[in-house]
Amino acid sequence: MKVRVLVSFKDSVLDPQGQTVKNALHTLGYKNISDVRQGKVFEVDITDMSDADIEKIIPEISNKVLANPIIEKFTWEILE
Amino acid sequence: MKVRVLVSFKDSVLDPQGQTVKNALHTLGYKNISDVRQGKVFEVDITDMSDADIEKIIPEISNKVLANPIIEKFTWEILE
Repeated sequence: MKVRVLVSFKDSVLDPQGQTVKNALHTLGYKNISDVRQGKVFEVDITDMSDADIEKIIPEISNKVLANPIIEKFTWEILE
Repeated sequence: MKVRVLVSFKDSVLDPQGQTVKNALHTLGYKNISDVRQGKVFEVDITDMSDADIEKIIPEISNKVLANPIIEKFTWEILE
């Protein structure tokens, strides 16, 4: 099974990387870009595990390793 | 409109960050994790632009700014 975990800053946290990307795009003439937020994506391959167990461990590993729950939020989806 | 662009290393490119995360998860006892690949995600807000124009500029800005097309690939989806 392949699971995609998306990690991004909470909305209340400043995102300087995203701001820098937005400014670069404006400089290049893409004025319609009103905001950019940058985050991380993890594609996790899991073997020999039931769907129920996957639904249990993904939030666990996201909170422990993939994301910093103080400043980041995460969502995840099963790809295949 | 909000567009999500996912950027990750091409399959032929080593991903040391992903390997480090995998090793950390193994150390914590999550032995069923067989692979982890890490990438970047950008959530781009676009105002006053037609769907056709969005479909044109997203690959443009991805190749120019968001991704390095030599070593990275990207996919994108319109969220809303």
